[in-house]
Amino acid sequence: MTPSQTDTAPTAPDASHVISVDAMGGDKGPATVVAGLSMFLRNFPQARAILHGPEDELRKLLERRGISDRVKIQHAEDVVQMTDKPSNVLRHGKKTSMWSAVEAVRNEEAGVCVSCGNTGGLMAISMMRLRKAEGVNRPAIACLWPSRNKQGFNVMLDAGADIRADQDDLLTYALMGASYARNAFDLERPRIGLLNVGVEEHKGRAELKVAHDLIGRSADRGEFDYVGFVEGGDMPSDKIDVIVTDGFTGNVALKTGEGTATLISEFLRSALMRNPVSMFGAVLARGSLDRLRKRIDPRSVNGGVFLGLNKTVVKSHGGADATGISAALQLAYRLAQSGFSNKLAARVASAASLAQDAIQEGEAAKAAEAGK
Amino acid sequence: MTPSQTDTAPTAPDASHVISVDAMGGDKGPATVVAGLSMFLRNFPQARAILHGPEDELRKLLERRGISDRVKIQHAEDVVQMTDKPSNVLRHGKKTSMWSAVEAVRNEEAGVCVSCGNTGGLMAISMMRLRKAEGVNRPAIACLWPSRNKQGFNVMLDAGADIRADQDDLLTYALMGASYARNAFDLERPRIGLLNVGVEEHKGRAELKVAHDLIGRSADRGEFDYVGFVEGGDMPSDKIDVIVTDGFTGNVALKTGEGTATLISEFLRSALMRNPVSMFGAVLARGSLDRLRKRIDPRSVNGGVFLGLNKTVVKSHGGADATGISAALQLAYRLAQSGFSNKLAARVASAASLAQDAIQEGEAAKAAEAGK
Repeated sequence: MTPSQTDTAPTAPDASHVISVDAMGGDKGPATVVAGLSMFLRNFPQARAILHGPEDELRKLLERRGISDRVKIQHAEDVVQMTDKPSNVLRHGKKTSMWSAVEAVRNEEAGVCVSCGNTGGLMAISMMRLRKAEGVNRPAIACLWPSRNKQGFNVMLDAGADIRADQDDLLTYALMGASYARNAFDLERPRIGLLNVGVEEHKGRAELKVAHDLIGRSADRGEFDYVGFVEGGDMPSDKIDVIVTDGFTGNVALKTGEGTATLISEFLRSALMRNPVSMFGAVLARGSLDRLRKRIDPRSVNGGVFLGLNKTVVKSHGGADATGISAALQLAYRLAQSGFSNKLAARVASAASLAQDAIQEGEAAKAAEAGK
Repeated sequence: MTPSQTDTAPTAPDASHVISVDAMGGDKGPATVVAGLSMFLRNFPQARAILHGPEDELRKLLERRGISDRVKIQHAEDVVQMTDKPSNVLRHGKKTSMWSAVEAVRNEEAGVCVSCGNTGGLMAISMMRLRKAEGVNRPAIACLWPSRNKQGFNVMLDAGADIRADQDDLLTYALMGASYARNAFDLERPRIGLLNVGVEEHKGRAELKVAHDLIGRSADRGEFDYVGFVEGGDMPSDKIDVIVTDGFTGNVALKTGEGTATLISEFLRSALMRNPVSMFGAVLARGSLDRLRKRIDPRSVNGGVFLGLNKTVVKSHGGADATGISAALQLAYRLAQSGFSNKLAARVASAASLAQDAIQEGEAAKAAEAGK
C-alpha cells in the first residue's frame, strides 16, 4: 500500500498489478492508447494503470471511457517525437511522458512500462534510468513471431535494440530469450536456434561460428536445448521456440515478415473481389477469413520486450491501434505478474561466467585432444 | 550455325536461343527438371536447350516428354551434392553436370545457364569459369520480390552470394540491380533503395552511411533514381524497383518472406476448413484463391540471377517443382534474348570509376565549402 498517493484513482495493493503507460508518441495519439487501455482493463479486473501525458486531455479521455477510477494520471507536458535522436531525448527529454513512464517503474510504483513511442528514445531512457542487468553488455528487444508451435508464437531477438552483436552478446541473447520463453509460454526447456544463411556448420560470419559453439556448450547449464543454426524460413518453425540474431538482421527480418503478411492480406482481398461468385464465397467464409486476418495481423502480435534491463519495458508498435495496444498491455501484465524481470536478472547474472566456463572447457577439451 | 555438332537435336542458329540446363542437383531429381523444361519449351517455340547429366537417364526422360528434337544432351556422370562445400566442388567437380552446364555458356554454345543445385558450388564454378566482370569485386544474386509495383516484382540483391559487402560493393549492387531491372522490366530509370533499420540518415552501420552517400552521388550517371534508405517493410513497396543490401541480410530477408508466405497459405487453408459454411465459401472462391496462391508461391517467382560475371547464370530454388523450373527458364531466356550480360558488363565496367568520381566530387565539394 502507498497511502501517500493522493490521486482520486485507488492504488492497487501491489506494483505488479500496475502498468505504467506512456499515453503519447504513438502515431494515432492518446485517444487510441486510452481505447486500448480500456479494452485491456475490461479483461483484467485486478489491473491498474498510471497514464503519463497532458493531464487535462487525458482526464477527458479516461472519463469518456469510464475508467478514471482505475487509472492514475501522471502529468507530463512534453512528447518524444518519432524523429528525435536518442541522444537528444536523453539531453532534453526529462519532461516527456516517456521519461515519466519509465520513471514510475524505476520508483517501483508500477511493475512494467509500456510505450508506443520512438524505439531508440525509449531504449536510451530505459538504459539510463533502469540500468543494464548484471552481465549484460547489450540489451535486446524480443518480439513474438506467429509460428506452428503449440504456443502459437516463437520469440525472436534482437529485433533492433542494437545494430551490432558479438559472440558474447549472442550467448546472452540465448539466455535471455530462453528465460523469456520460459515465463511467457511456460516452457521448461525452450529450444534455441541461431539465425544464419544456412544450417551447415561452415556457413556464415566468423562471430556466428564462435557463438554457435558458445551457445551449444551453455545449453545444459542455461536449461535450454540448442537446435543449432536456423534460416529465415525457420522463423515460424515448430522445431524452435527462440531465434537468436543481431539487431540489424532481426529488425530487417521482422519488418520483412510484417510487410509480407500485409501484402498477402491485400492480395487476398483483391483476389476475392475479382468476381461475384468468389465475392459470395468470401461472404460465406467471412468468419474464418477474419480469424485468419487477426492471426497474421502484425498489430495482434504487437509488443516488443526490452530484455537485459533491471525492469521490464514493453515497446508497442508505433502504428498500433486499440487492439494492438491492448495486446501489448496484456503481454506486459503477464510478465509483471510472473515476476519475470527478477527471474531474468538471476539467469543472465551468470551469463558472463557461463561464457567464460564454456571457453575454458573448449580449450581444455582441445588440450586433452592434443595430448592423446 | 555450328555444323560441327553431331547430336540428333538440331542446333538453334543463335546461342541466345539456347539455354544450358543442369538436370541434376535439385531436390526432386532430373524428371522434375525435364518436366519444367517441357513446360517452358511449349511456350517458347524458338527456344532450344542443352541438358547436362547422365545420358541414358536423360534420353528416356526427354523421349517420354517428346522434346528430344529440341534438347541436346551433354553427358556428365557426377552430381554436385547440396552438402558439398564450394572449395570441394572446385577441386573435384569437373565431371559434374553443374560444371558442364556452366562450361557450355563459357564456350558460347548457350546464352545462359540454369541450375537448381547447390548455390555455393554454382557460384564458385561460375566465378572460376566465367570470371568476374571488370569493376566487380563481389558478384551478387538478384532475386524477384512480389510487389505492389506495376511490374509486379521488385529486384532484391544480394540474396546470398557473399555474406559481406562494403560500401563499394553496395554501389556496384545498385548499378547491377538498376541494369537488371532495366532489362527485365523495361524501366528507363529504376528506383533504388538501400536496406537499413530505419529511413533516417543517422541510422544503421557505418558502411551503410557511406554507401548512402556514394549511391546518391552516382544516380545521374548510373541512370537510376536513388530513393534513400528503406526498411524490411518496403520489400514489396511501389516506391522502389530495386533493394540493395549485403548477402547475409538479403538471404535472411528472402527466406523470412518465403517462410511467412508459406505459413499464411497453411493458415488460410486451415481457416477455410474450420466449418462447412466457410468450406462451401472456399469452393466458390476457389479460382480466386488459386490465383492468390500462385501469386505468393515462392516457386512461381523462382530464379535468382547471378550478377557481376561475364555471362548470366540463373539459380533456381533447390526445392523447385516443374512450375518453378519453368519460371526460372523463362526468366533466363528473357535475359539471354535481351543481351543482358553484355549490357550489364558495360554498366559495371564504369562502376569503379563512378565510385572514384563520387568520392572525389564529395571531397571537392567539402573543400569548396571549407574555402567559402
